[in-house]
Amino acid sequence: MRPKASPLPECPCAATVESVGEWWSLLILRDAFLGLSRFDAFERSLGIAPNMLARRLKHLTDSGIFERRLYQHRPPRYAYLLTAKGRDFFPVIAAMIAWGNRQLAPDGASMQLAMRDGGQPVEPVLIDLASAMPITPDSVVPVPGPRASLQMRARLLSLTAPRPAAPPQNP
Amino acid sequence: MRPKASPLPECPCAATVESVGEWWSLLILRDAFLGLSRFDAFERSLGIAPNMLARRLKHLTDSGIFERRLYQHRPPRYAYLLTAKGRDFFPVIAAMIAWGNRQLAPDGASMQLAMRDGGQPVEPVLIDLASAMPITPDSVVPVPGPRASLQMRARLLSLTAPRPAAPPQNP
Repeated sequence: MRPKASPLPECPCAATVESVGEWWSLLILRDAFLGLSRFDAFERSLGIAPNMLARRLKHLTDSGIFERRLYQHRPPRYAYLLTAKGRDFFPVIAAMIAWGNRQLAPDGASMQLAMRDGGQPVEPVLIDLASAMPITPDSVVPVPGPRASLQMRARLLSLTAPRPAAPPQNP
Repeated sequence: MRPKASPLPECPCAATVESVGEWWSLLILRDAFLGLSRFDAFERSLGIAPNMLARRLKHLTDSGIFERRLYQHRPPRYAYLLTAKGRDFFPVIAAMIAWGNRQLAPDGASMQLAMRDGGQPVEPVLIDLASAMPITPDSVVPVPGPRASLQMRARLLSLTAPRPAAPPQNP
């Protein structure tokens, strides 16, 4: 299902994909943000096989997104709690919820996020902290960071170079 | 790989997952935001098999995220261009890039987003448009929308209800 090796493992987006592990693991994270933490609660909510759920929880725990905590000794039972690293993933989930509501719910939302104290539904917008400008495909551009490899620099440079006039063969 | 049926298909996060289709499709979207549009350019960038790439591009086109446009007649060659719906997905990708840089690049970023005019690297923050308050797991809470089913309402209500004292059996 996944490419054998990402040509650019240093890409932060590819690294994020790798760290979360699987597409449907995002729904585990959604449930964790909704307050679920126990194996059987995730199982009921997601309707997936226990062995698959166990594998995904293990990956998310190995990635440092969940911390596993014993909450019962006999028999042993574990809760999966979001770490600080895991909680920091919330903007991705909130942005997905917002896109789903904007683009896939033409007749109105079924679930939305609201301010905890005010109760008003929020309209999530991604801005730059320093300038407070909205972050859109038009306003930002990818640039090499301090740790960029030569390959990454060449790639980002090629994106701003003019395209070839005669396109190569492709299916 | 995926659950047979999501217990709550009306969830905007689950709908988003379904619409994009596969985990690695996010890297196609990343590349599209970087400016790639041609089949062979995606293929080179991602290093995946042509049949797999074709299947993902078809799904993203069927979902209305890409529009396929003929750019050469003989032989026919297509470019995959982000639609308005596809471009609106950018905050998800930008939030993933930001998380990757914050959490997975302790020695510094390899790639980051910068303001197109100023050149300064951005620090993406998700805020509520109306109140300008940051959207965090602590500041917001999921609430039923106008189109919530009874099942959705019950589910969201149960999340705020007190937890049972004796946890059910689970592995």
